[in-house]
Amino acid sequence: MRDVYVVGVGTTRYGELWDQSLRDLASEAGLRALVDAGLKAEDIDALYGANTSSGQFIDQEHIAALISDYSGISELGIPSIRIEAGSASGGAALHQAFLAVKSGQYDTIAVGGVEKMTDVPSEVANEIIGGSLDAEWETFLGATEPSIAALIARRHEYDRGVKRENYAILPVISHKHASMNETSHFKNVIKIDDVINASLVAEPLTVYDTAPVSDGASAVIITSDKKKIKSASNPIKIKSSSMANDFLSLHDRNRIDTFKAVKKSTSKALEGAGITLEKVDGFEIHDSYSIAGLIQLEELFGKEALRMSENGEYYYDSSCPINVSGGLKAHGNPLGATGVYQAVEATIQLRGNAGLRQVKDSRNFMIHNMGGLGTTSVTTILGVE
Amino acid sequence: MRDVYVVGVGTTRYGELWDQSLRDLASEAGLRALVDAGLKAEDIDALYGANTSSGQFIDQEHIAALISDYSGISELGIPSIRIEAGSASGGAALHQAFLAVKSGQYDTIAVGGVEKMTDVPSEVANEIIGGSLDAEWETFLGATEPSIAALIARRHEYDRGVKRENYAILPVISHKHASMNETSHFKNVIKIDDVINASLVAEPLTVYDTAPVSDGASAVIITSDKKKIKSASNPIKIKSSSMANDFLSLHDRNRIDTFKAVKKSTSKALEGAGITLEKVDGFEIHDSYSIAGLIQLEELFGKEALRMSENGEYYYDSSCPINVSGGLKAHGNPLGATGVYQAVEATIQLRGNAGLRQVKDSRNFMIHNMGGLGTTSVTTILGVE
Repeated sequence: MRDVYVVGVGTTRYGELWDQSLRDLASEAGLRALVDAGLKAEDIDALYGANTSSGQFIDQEHIAALISDYSGISELGIPSIRIEAGSASGGAALHQAFLAVKSGQYDTIAVGGVEKMTDVPSEVANEIIGGSLDAEWETFLGATEPSIAALIARRHEYDRGVKRENYAILPVISHKHASMNETSHFKNVIKIDDVINASLVAEPLTVYDTAPVSDGASAVIITSDKKKIKSASNPIKIKSSSMANDFLSLHDRNRIDTFKAVKKSTSKALEGAGITLEKVDGFEIHDSYSIAGLIQLEELFGKEALRMSENGEYYYDSSCPINVSGGLKAHGNPLGATGVYQAVEATIQLRGNAGLRQVKDSRNFMIHNMGGLGTTSVTTILGVE
Repeated sequence: MRDVYVVGVGTTRYGELWDQSLRDLASEAGLRALVDAGLKAEDIDALYGANTSSGQFIDQEHIAALISDYSGISELGIPSIRIEAGSASGGAALHQAFLAVKSGQYDTIAVGGVEKMTDVPSEVANEIIGGSLDAEWETFLGATEPSIAALIARRHEYDRGVKRENYAILPVISHKHASMNETSHFKNVIKIDDVINASLVAEPLTVYDTAPVSDGASAVIITSDKKKIKSASNPIKIKSSSMANDFLSLHDRNRIDTFKAVKKSTSKALEGAGITLEKVDGFEIHDSYSIAGLIQLEELFGKEALRMSENGEYYYDSSCPINVSGGLKAHGNPLGATGVYQAVEATIQLRGNAGLRQVKDSRNFMIHNMGGLGTTSVTTILGVE
């Protein structure tokens, strides 16, 4: 089996980027990744584009072909393909590209994720985000993604005795980390009371419990080509990539406040990488909602998750760093780009280039990208050998 | 390298299926394919769903997870992922699934394609179909897909001396074949004058030059698992699968009436399968528009394409059968499903189960699925050894 390495990463900043269209953003991120890899467009065998809802946001499908066209690489004739798995599109595209390189048919693939969300009013954006739920049985009846997350939060409090502070702490950590990342959507530091007392989105969740609507794009170049790996300044190995799914609709699940798919994809990824959880030095998790972040940590660490949270162990300079990038909450959440940025962050960290937010002595990073609320789960483990 | 076989196929009928939703259609096709393969849901390692525009047609993204949920296989936790490449989504999903099996990470994958197009008025459907063009530089300025196809037709007539009859013949052939296929959208036989004198869509193209707006779903089960291949009643090998791209926007291309990506992906597929064009016994091509069909044939056969057409060689019982299924024009064109149905048809033909429209002694089939007008090109060669 061939080994697959990340040899280049690039990202735009995330935020409300009104002066850049989807094609601008995607091309910028892709070009940055190519330059970082020391490669040219001619070195790429295929383009995988992750995007969640461009059809609804900007009336544009066939998005990978568009990016290929605008960036000029259509001249080369290489395949361009879009992967969609709700807000796990980025992770899923990385997964597919990983498999495509493993297959031997392609050596070097550019994986880009992009979303342009601020060209529509925010109430329309929220409706579009709801498209990753079940349109007939959930959104048509009035449910929104935050309201579903709120249901999960209330059930979790009721059944498991979880306190408001137990998940309100996660945005505080993410904002702290984001303040040290120059591409972050938000750079302000907040306190736990700010989270709890902010404007309500869906009780008990406030605006600080929810990731923002962002524009942005990120890209990574992966390869199995020994020459390209050798010439890269600091190649990072993709040790494994795994996906799992759960029911899309909450009403089809036995419990709504556990994420079975997360347990499954993270376990498979650890097994694939041949390491145990203790060997992972940093985690990027999908904190689209604070409560979703907490449940992912519980699927990873069980009952320890709350204790570690209360002990402050999730900060970048503590024992179990979580979302050192700033996470979806504070680095930003352009849906299709998010999962790709997680790979960018892991690579920056493993290279030791993360500056103020550097996780010390990190050799393995786990990144977890989620579609919907626990529906689609993609886990990738990157590391140095 | 592992060999990959189609061990099961299934399809719904294509047409205006007002009593079936997207999830009904996809589940029906998937179940038929499983039954055909003699397998259970437990035997499947992943689900790849092809769909072009469900976000715009039915406000639903995260479509592979939805199908997984509705059909009950979410219980198993297997990955579900959507592939989109305009109207080449079906072929692209098959390509990805093929690579994923080749990679060794998955053994058996269900590939389904589905589109539900008739829940919106036809003028809205046409706008959505335009989403596979360049939204900023083409559709925003008033171009539609048929109008782009018409530009190509006029340029081709002007530069190459192609006559109206040279491409008006293709829908006649497709309707003849569709009349012998029970799952066809249209079963009426037409004449060349019917095509030329029908209502204009975009001069010179009439309704008979253009594929219909259809609902439908199709599925295939592919595997490398020796036990499943052995127990299948008539496994068909996927000898190769290749993709290529050209510029999305017509204004970026050197010529608008040639399809460079088609030449590239078909050549690569032949090379991958280790056969020459003469060894291909039947072709399914992407006749979304009659003129697009003709240009694909010219990319395959050069100047011979016109002569063969005039000699009637494209009929199922002649020397070079094209679109024996009825093609997109007459079997129907539910965008994301179309490329998967091409694989269903090739399998039925290679098994010798095609009844009245059977291509005699066929050992190799080439299927060609296209996104936009020559933008994305996916070629798969299936055969018996």
